[in-house]
Amino acid sequence: MTLEKAPKESYVVSTEMVLPNDTNPLNNLMGGHLLHLMDVVAAISAQKHSNRIVVTASVDNVSFKHSPKLGDVITLEAHVTRAFNSSMEVFIRVWSENIPNGTKVETNQAFFTFVAVDQTGRPITVPKIKPETNIEKKLYEEALQRREVRLMMAGRMKPKDATSLHSIFEKKEEGK
Amino acid sequence: MTLEKAPKESYVVSTEMVLPNDTNPLNNLMGGHLLHLMDVVAAISAQKHSNRIVVTASVDNVSFKHSPKLGDVITLEAHVTRAFNSSMEVFIRVWSENIPNGTKVETNQAFFTFVAVDQTGRPITVPKIKPETNIEKKLYEEALQRREVRLMMAGRMKPKDATSLHSIFEKKEEGK
Amino acid sequence: MTLEKAPKESYVVSTEMVLPNDTNPLNNLMGGHLLHLMDVVAAISAQKHSNRIVVTASVDNVSFKHSPKLGDVITLEAHVTRAFNSSMEVFIRVWSENIPNGTKVETNQAFFTFVAVDQTGRPITVPKIKPETNIEKKLYEEALQRREVRLMMAGRMKPKDATSLHSIFEKKEEGK
Amino acid sequence: MTLEKAPKESYVVSTEMVLPNDTNPLNNLMGGHLLHLMDVVAAISAQKHSNRIVVTASVDNVSFKHSPKLGDVITLEAHVTRAFNSSMEVFIRVWSENIPNGTKVETNQAFFTFVAVDQTGRPITVPKIKPETNIEKKLYEEALQRREVRLMMAGRMKPKDATSLHSIFEKKEEGK
Amino acid sequence: MTLEKAPKESYVVSTEMVLPNDTNPLNNLMGGHLLHLMDVVAAISAQKHSNRIVVTASVDNVSFKHSPKLGDVITLEAHVTRAFNSSMEVFIRVWSENIPNGTKVETNQAFFTFVAVDQTGRPITVPKIKPETNIEKKLYEEALQRREVRLMMAGRMKPKDATSLHSIFEKKEEGK
Amino acid sequence: MTLEKAPKESYVVSTEMVLPNDTNPLNNLMGGHLLHLMDVVAAISAQKHSNRIVVTASVDNVSFKHSPKLGDVITLEAHVTRAFNSSMEVFIRVWSENIPNGTKVETNQAFFTFVAVDQTGRPITVPKIKPETNIEKKLYEEALQRREVRLMMAGRMKPKDATSLHSIFEKKEEGK
Repeated sequence: MTLEKAPKESYVVSTEMVLPNDTNPLNNLMGGHLLHLMDVVAAISAQKHSNRIVVTASVDNVSFKHSPKLGDVITLEAHVTRAFNSSMEVFIRVWSENIPNGTKVETNQAFFTFVAVDQTGRPITVPKIKPETNIEKKLYEEALQRREVRLMMAGRMKPKDATSLHSIFEKKEEGK
Repeated sequence: MTLEKAPKESYVVSTEMVLPNDTNPLNNLMGGHLLHLMDVVAAISAQKHSNRIVVTASVDNVSFKHSPKLGDVITLEAHVTRAFNSSMEVFIRVWSENIPNGTKVETNQAFFTFVAVDQTGRPITVPKIKPETNIEKKLYEEALQRREVRLMMAGRMKPKDATSLHSIFEKKEEGK
Repeated sequence: MTLEKAPKESYVVSTEMVLPNDTNPLNNLMGGHLLHLMDVVAAISAQKHSNRIVVTASVDNVSFKHSPKLGDVITLEAHVTRAFNSSMEVFIRVWSENIPNGTKVETNQAFFTFVAVDQTGRPITVPKIKPETNIEKKLYEEALQRREVRLMMAGRMKPKDATSLHSIFEKKEEGK
Repeated sequence: MTLEKAPKESYVVSTEMVLPNDTNPLNNLMGGHLLHLMDVVAAISAQKHSNRIVVTASVDNVSFKHSPKLGDVITLEAHVTRAFNSSMEVFIRVWSENIPNGTKVETNQAFFTFVAVDQTGRPITVPKIKPETNIEKKLYEEALQRREVRLMMAGRMKPKDATSLHSIFEKKEEGK
Repeated sequence: MTLEKAPKESYVVSTEMVLPNDTNPLNNLMGGHLLHLMDVVAAISAQKHSNRIVVTASVDNVSFKHSPKLGDVITLEAHVTRAFNSSMEVFIRVWSENIPNGTKVETNQAFFTFVAVDQTGRPITVPKIKPETNIEKKLYEEALQRREVRLMMAGRMKPKDATSLHSIFEKKEEGK
Repeated sequence: MTLEKAPKESYVVSTEMVLPNDTNPLNNLMGGHLLHLMDVVAAISAQKHSNRIVVTASVDNVSFKHSPKLGDVITLEAHVTRAFNSSMEVFIRVWSENIPNGTKVETNQAFFTFVAVDQTGRPITVPKIKPETNIEKKLYEEALQRREVRLMMAGRMKPKDATSLHSIFEKKEEGK
């Protein structure tokens, strides 16, 4: 197994059209359908990094800034930001485009986490990430904090142990 | 418009079967499809509370504890925990059941937030929530903290202003 | 195997939203799609009673009183009314709700019959039903008549042997 | 409007393949999916007779004799048997074929009833049926009895008024 | 194995309704969805001729003359025109009908080629075609030319070897 | 309207996973489903070039070299090669990847033609293509020949008028 891979090796793009069945009665794309598209693209990215079958472990807080409309074109970009043993954090960005109108907006961003598994469904170690660009390095560094939030939210880490989060609130104390 | 409603007035249950197209090559339900089911049930719950068309505004951190398998029966339960002007937080619990085996496990829990909109898509005020049971009261109280996490995550609130979150870390300080 | 189960042990509720692809050009839910939803919910109910894989054996006369519209919320409730060896009769009620308008009507009722099968597809005995409420007892009693109609319709029983049906027409004679 | 049409003018055939998503964990076609296919073909037949948009009014007792399997080819044939003001009874026959094995069996038969509607959804008169072959004439004659069963089942006719059904049971009396 | 079969033995008809999800924002059936329907019907036809599982090998030039609209009824007819060892050419004609308006037009025609395979996916010989009607004989004769175009297009035959095509251009030379 | 655009301005990538419902009983992706995916990606590309709603006008000969399998990842790349008044030729390449096995093969290539239309569905002029790379220039040049084949196939051009095709066969004559 490769010991380290760059984020670009797990880079995936997908382009989809918003069809009638994906929309609510106001012709807006339903949030759940977008989460479904994001999960598929992010899973392919995690597969590319690990060369394994992957299962979704968690989804971080996602907020929807704009609602794509019927007929809009959705572009999704994903890559792995950091790997921890058998798990991988994938960063996904989504844009929505009304091509005849010439408008394109960022719809949302999200972090999904996947676990690589073998044919019996058991977790298996994946290569580390070696970030290259400044943005990749920043995403890599901050992945620790997001991981602590995730573990806290899942009730698997106590606030006092979430050490990388303390700095956020300590900065606040200093800023008083 | 009714000024206050109980959580039970927005209570929704749905029961689904895991079909082949919803699964990955290990026959596990794909996380994205489950998010899609959760979004539909939660949206119906928010509709029941507000008697309005609703759009998904955000999804809180979701972690998947168990992967439902092909042929399993999924039960989803949702109700509104708290309303803020035009937005509603919905709590969703999901169970997965292998009926022939007689096993049933909790798959995950999540909080989705919806905004009620009028026919032109503009946000519109919804009734307040009046919690009745102890669990409903706890969910209602903690909704403030989850809201601050959401606003921070969306970059719309600074850590120093997330006052209800401070207590979590202050308790930690005391606990040293 | 449990020898007897109450109808409430096979009680299933499901809630669905009418999406564009389920509708005809007048935006009414297509009858065939509703039958499909009813079959899935009823099958889950029969699974719950028998703890077995089940196959649809027959559908009784169904009449559609109201056509749900695009965006309506459909609620389906099902439970087993009576079991005969390996077959189970399931009663399903369907409501359609336009939540923003605050209207809710019963769309239809139906009886589906399922057969429990083992892994090789062969019929296998299921627990009996022990009705508890008055409505459950009435549904249980009348299940015999419905079964005779079904067998006659399938050409597997002659009218003269449909003894429980005679009383219906005999009452008529008396009523002259 | 044409005053009378032959059954052959509403004759429709459709051929479908059983795909993974239409099957249960034993790889049998789910009954509800077959009802959905039958409804679409029968609706097209009723459209051909009436040259109108049609809505499903009722489905008669359907029993499933054989379960088509994954990969089987389903053939559905439908035509209108009789028209009553704005409603049409459609007879549907379904065959299931395993082409590599060279086997073909009749899966089931059914009668669906449709109502022709105008653009506002109101019932509208349709042409009468003029049966031509002996089979068509038999289906046409017996349609009256099936209609009485339907009206009785829907609670819209009392047993004593179901005059065409009496003969069935009277024959029985004579046969004693 | 039968040595020769008539085209009518592989004749397949299917009838479908254009649903919202199959259409673009102008309510026209998307070309790709129609190709999908054509592939399924043609595959069933090739299965009927060969009594084998078949895989799509190629699609000849298809041009779309008319765009079926939402609610239109699509009729597809297919039969095998000629067989070559393990491959079969299938001719498909498609009509689109607006039944309430009483209009019906030919949407397009196409030739799809399939290869019959055994359970391990390896090509396997199929019966020859014995054309009967004049149209079937013409389609049978011209199948050689279409095959040469296909092989040339796939880069598997050089123009100088496409002998049946030369006549087309030689006629042109004479016509100067 | 921009008078000329480079092919890269209409470049679209999409990445999809082969799901159970897209496959035949040998677990191969059905050809018709792949054509559907290709049509969607090519339509988005033609939309990007024209900033208009587009309708599929024709599909050139497509041959399937490899059958993607269940669980494979499909990558589709498309861009406009040349524009003629209101029509655009789009070149699509498709790869299929088994990520856990580390294998990736080209599945097929194809040319789809689209027509840009206004809101009433009438054809409307689109920008010209200005090819930049050598490959783009070659695709641009050869587009004339492919167009003649298309028009001949659709019966809208006689072989003697297909002047750009003559050279192919003339070269052959010289090569004798």
